[in-house]
Amino acid sequence: MDPRIREQAETIVDHSTDVQPGDNVVVSAPSVAEDLAVALHEAVGDRGAIPLLLGNSDRAERAFLRAVDDDEIETPTHLEACYEDSDVLIRVRSETNATEQGDVDAETQAAHTAARRPVQEVALSTRWCLTQFPSPASAQLAGMSTEAYENFVWDAVNKDWSAQRDHQARMVDILDPAEEVHIRCGEVTDVTMSVDGMETVNDHAEHNLPGGEVFTAPVVDSVAGEVLFDKPLYHKGREITGAHLVFEGGEVVEHSADRNEDLLTEVLHTDEGARRLGELGIGMNRDIDRFTYNMLFDEKMGDTVHMAIGRAYEECVGEDREANESAVHLDMIVDMSEESVIEVDGEVVQRDGRFRFEEGFEG
Amino acid sequence: MDPRIREQAETIVDHSTDVQPGDNVVVSAPSVAEDLAVALHEAVGDRGAIPLLLGNSDRAERAFLRAVDDDEIETPTHLEACYEDSDVLIRVRSETNATEQGDVDAETQAAHTAARRPVQEVALSTRWCLTQFPSPASAQLAGMSTEAYENFVWDAVNKDWSAQRDHQARMVDILDPAEEVHIRCGEVTDVTMSVDGMETVNDHAEHNLPGGEVFTAPVVDSVAGEVLFDKPLYHKGREITGAHLVFEGGEVVEHSADRNEDLLTEVLHTDEGARRLGELGIGMNRDIDRFTYNMLFDEKMGDTVHMAIGRAYEECVGEDREANESAVHLDMIVDMSEESVIEVDGEVVQRDGRFRFEEGFEG
Repeated sequence: MDPRIREQAETIVDHSTDVQPGDNVVVSAPSVAEDLAVALHEAVGDRGAIPLLLGNSDRAERAFLRAVDDDEIETPTHLEACYEDSDVLIRVRSETNATEQGDVDAETQAAHTAARRPVQEVALSTRWCLTQFPSPASAQLAGMSTEAYENFVWDAVNKDWSAQRDHQARMVDILDPAEEVHIRCGEVTDVTMSVDGMETVNDHAEHNLPGGEVFTAPVVDSVAGEVLFDKPLYHKGREITGAHLVFEGGEVVEHSADRNEDLLTEVLHTDEGARRLGELGIGMNRDIDRFTYNMLFDEKMGDTVHMAIGRAYEECVGEDREANESAVHLDMIVDMSEESVIEVDGEVVQRDGRFRFEEGFEG
Repeated sequence: MDPRIREQAETIVDHSTDVQPGDNVVVSAPSVAEDLAVALHEAVGDRGAIPLLLGNSDRAERAFLRAVDDDEIETPTHLEACYEDSDVLIRVRSETNATEQGDVDAETQAAHTAARRPVQEVALSTRWCLTQFPSPASAQLAGMSTEAYENFVWDAVNKDWSAQRDHQARMVDILDPAEEVHIRCGEVTDVTMSVDGMETVNDHAEHNLPGGEVFTAPVVDSVAGEVLFDKPLYHKGREITGAHLVFEGGEVVEHSADRNEDLLTEVLHTDEGARRLGELGIGMNRDIDRFTYNMLFDEKMGDTVHMAIGRAYEECVGEDREANESAVHLDMIVDMSEESVIEVDGEVVQRDGRFRFEEGFEG
């Protein structure tokens, strides 16, 4: 086994989820990521905790979703019961065919996502971590050779997370006490939102491995303006490009996309919260040096911001603030490397991808 | 996908487990059996039930068991909670390497089995089914080509189960009202046991696919004599050959084996019930025409009997009778094709593998 796989497992079990003796741990991994599942079982056993492996097959899920009637899709309460008795949930993503669910109806996908919402809520109450295993199909999605992609993933994953945490703390210090954020990019994107009373989180690879962003939640009804998400995104095996959202009073009032607009429409109609922003994130991981069509990495890039429609993370929501609730959480990215600026309470904190605490910043 | 895989899935979902709309269904399958997992998800979805896929990796389990300290192995209560909320449990066996767990300590295996006992009890309270998917390594274990083994498995699995049920009912009619069973074979095996007040079950592929046996539970303290199990058996990836057990008052008082005797010793020491018989089974499936080192098939062969040390099946135990309880249930086979006789209440019902209701029987 590649020693970098065991290193990734150790990072997950120690740094990300702090596995303790007696913990009930769920490892959810597709078969193509079996090596990492094996390394995780070894690491979990070494720490005296109890693992359980979930299968997580896109092919099996597709077969179920194409066979079932939408109105028969119910919450998998047996999975919910399992999560309720779990301390740690490790979810490994890895593609065998990134478009495996490309022929599942968007409406069925939305019904499935909505039915799983209670399970997702329980999952978020555990010490959870989402990570990536580099498979050939994941490399193909990134447009890279398998070996180059393996290097990319393990370089991004197996690194000095305390140094990364310190770098990001400088942006947390700016954003956490702030009231208003104003983001402009290119000719279209011009959006403002309040983050007053919200909490800014320093993601140094606890819930996401790789980590490398700071993120918060907008005040629910404060978002106004429009955003062109100029980086493509994959959702349920389909690519949405050129997503354009117009916000009024926090709600999406107009939307369009160059490709798979119907899927975007379905997501926005999942529930009321799906039409509001649940997250504003700022990518700060400069070791992620290219887009790979994988949100777990793309959203961490140093000269990007991302916004997610749907569910807000509880940890971002201040005590007296409303949390946006939804069955969905769909991240969408804006490339901030050119013709762009982030202002916080009227002060420029990033221009063309450079933070004001980095070399090369031009206020 | 081979159409016989979908046929197997339909048999499991309709005949074996009677999946109904809204049922919570667990599919436990190793990655090499993904095709059957996919077909099962399709069949489960078609019937409006809710599937959950468990991974079931021998490699991952081995890694855990080699890393953990024996005294830290605890019951996986998250899995137990999952099963408690499940209606149907479908377990697919298929080998990637049948000796994957060959370097796990027998004591560790026994501790693991004991810790999982409460989970096993919950599993047995569901509508459960154990089946086999034909992988190359499973074929290797059987000493067959992959294609020949595929034919063997699907011929045994996809058949007319109502005709098989009627054939077996003739033996149930003999065994169910009986008091004493006396089995002799070759120069060593000569054992008597009472089945008075116990129930005889007609296995026509509900809990096992393939099915094809009738089985009951001996009265716990009635077993006396000795048995040479002349067919090899695999347990936790290791082969036990020539197992020899001597019973007095229902208990194993002497034991030996030609190979891996230490593993047999460990199993017998799992708990008190592991030293008593939990099952007497009579193989009646003449479509299974060869040993394949796989108990799910071997124990169903027409000219065999098998006895299991450990847990009795609840359905076999009469109302006023004691059920043998144990964390283990290890089936062991005697070849009855030559120099053998089964007597029930003093009457010969099988000689040299032929039942008295079959052609060729010589009283």
